[in-house]
Amino acid sequence: MTSKDYYFDSYAHFGIHEEMLKDEVRTNKIVMDVGSGTGILSMFAARAGATKVFAVEFSKMATQSKKIIKDNQMDNVIEVIHSKIEDIAELPGGIEQVDVIVSEWMGYCLFYESMLNTVIYARDKWLAPNGILFPDKATLYLCAIEDRQYKDEKINWWDNVYGFNMASIRQLAITEPLVDVVDRGQVVTDNVVLKEVDLYTVQVSDLAFETLFALRVIRNDYVQALVTFFTVEFTKCHKRVGFSTAPDCKYTHWKQTVFYLYESLTVKKNEEIHGTFSVAPNIRNPRDLDFRMQISFQGELCELEEDNTYIMH
Amino acid sequence: MTSKDYYFDSYAHFGIHEEMLKDEVRTNKIVMDVGSGTGILSMFAARAGATKVFAVEFSKMATQSKKIIKDNQMDNVIEVIHSKIEDIAELPGGIEQVDVIVSEWMGYCLFYESMLNTVIYARDKWLAPNGILFPDKATLYLCAIEDRQYKDEKINWWDNVYGFNMASIRQLAITEPLVDVVDRGQVVTDNVVLKEVDLYTVQVSDLAFETLFALRVIRNDYVQALVTFFTVEFTKCHKRVGFSTAPDCKYTHWKQTVFYLYESLTVKKNEEIHGTFSVAPNIRNPRDLDFRMQISFQGELCELEEDNTYIMH
Repeated sequence: MTSKDYYFDSYAHFGIHEEMLKDEVRTNKIVMDVGSGTGILSMFAARAGATKVFAVEFSKMATQSKKIIKDNQMDNVIEVIHSKIEDIAELPGGIEQVDVIVSEWMGYCLFYESMLNTVIYARDKWLAPNGILFPDKATLYLCAIEDRQYKDEKINWWDNVYGFNMASIRQLAITEPLVDVVDRGQVVTDNVVLKEVDLYTVQVSDLAFETLFALRVIRNDYVQALVTFFTVEFTKCHKRVGFSTAPDCKYTHWKQTVFYLYESLTVKKNEEIHGTFSVAPNIRNPRDLDFRMQISFQGELCELEEDNTYIMH
Repeated sequence: MTSKDYYFDSYAHFGIHEEMLKDEVRTNKIVMDVGSGTGILSMFAARAGATKVFAVEFSKMATQSKKIIKDNQMDNVIEVIHSKIEDIAELPGGIEQVDVIVSEWMGYCLFYESMLNTVIYARDKWLAPNGILFPDKATLYLCAIEDRQYKDEKINWWDNVYGFNMASIRQLAITEPLVDVVDRGQVVTDNVVLKEVDLYTVQVSDLAFETLFALRVIRNDYVQALVTFFTVEFTKCHKRVGFSTAPDCKYTHWKQTVFYLYESLTVKKNEEIHGTFSVAPNIRNPRDLDFRMQISFQGELCELEEDNTYIMH
């Protein structure tokens, strides 16, 4: 873990966490921060008035965050626990439950290298019966985009490299979803929900799922790729707020995730792209995510069926 | 290893390899490609007329490159050996020596994650007494740059994060050299040589070294960072050619490597920045590189001594 992983562009949305914590923590709560990193959420909680904050961090950043918390005179309230959640047998001071769990657990495409498993574990073991999760709702969305230029430059490029046919790498390139910024002007369909995650009830087994989708085309154009993004909400607060990683929202370090198709679609307004989206941890390496997208399109100008697998690693 | 590691921006300079191979390989040579990746250099050698090419690749890309080489009908000349160089007991066909070793061994800052060790091993074990190395010379350079904006945005940013003092991460951020594009307009000194590597004679022990430098300032400005870049040459060819990763040369995926100073210098034209540069593999993790830069500046407007350590990991 280097400082690059904590650069400021991953902090842009943190303000919202503070707003929520101020709203809820003012009445002397005990807070657990799952995967606390630099300790920013723990310090928000302490500043909001938490009695005690357990900042649980497994990486070497734990050492760094201890120093930061001391530098900000909050070491009387925040206790950094340099450990996996799963390895904590008991909390310091004989505390048996926490009132609030905060966590910045979301990964690329919501689930890639996410800490959701860890949050579920912490919830089941340490959260009080009426305890609060921050955030408590996440939703994964899908849309389709026009991306001729990129596909030509980065994917089809392999068809002729200094006169050699490297199309077999082209195949490899297509099977890797690309975390990248999608311009709002590229989106040519509406957005559909692929998965809603309620943090209070989600189980580890819910993280492998399959769902049908139907995307409605909003203008005559081409489609080269499908794109996922997500929203996160704090629904238990007085005013319900959250943030979105959609192409038409402010940049976040999660960007969007692009899944290229083998062939392009020529689409007309109001036509529909039907399909099945599924995702599951890779069996050999559970940190990797396996995706499958079966796409079926019968348009006026174009018909296409694709059954594609992708892997994020 | 994903296709991203082989994207086209890492191919921009490969044309020069082909030019050199065409120049030298036309008389039926046996060629070894050390760390052959997709097989591009091996295919250049085959197209130039090599009798036999051994493409040695340890990563999974070996499987991919076998397919590419077959797709280009060169599998009669190129043999992919999916192995570490060090584990090859004998070459196929009882061949005992090779006439040419080609390798794209250079890493960031020339030496970071480079395959130079492997090329040295291959040279000592397999290269014929009058054999040729492509390339055969590499030179690491240093200059100094003005970079107020970036330093303020990305380094000093940690001094106040949502009202918290995270300066201890600032320290961490400064000790990590940054691989990034430096604009030629930022350079405020001449370039000095830190290290010349003659591929015919270099030994593994040469890869840890210390050297003095003196940079001459070319205009009144500020200095926030020192920057390394490198050149690579093919000196044994009829026309001596090579390429450079300097800030004033065409973009390469190696970009430049930026080492930030803790304090800024205010410099005047013709003043000199003196120092010592040293680099060595990290003892605990030899893939990491440890750098030390001792800087001494006595200018008219500013005096500064810094003794900084950096680590690339």
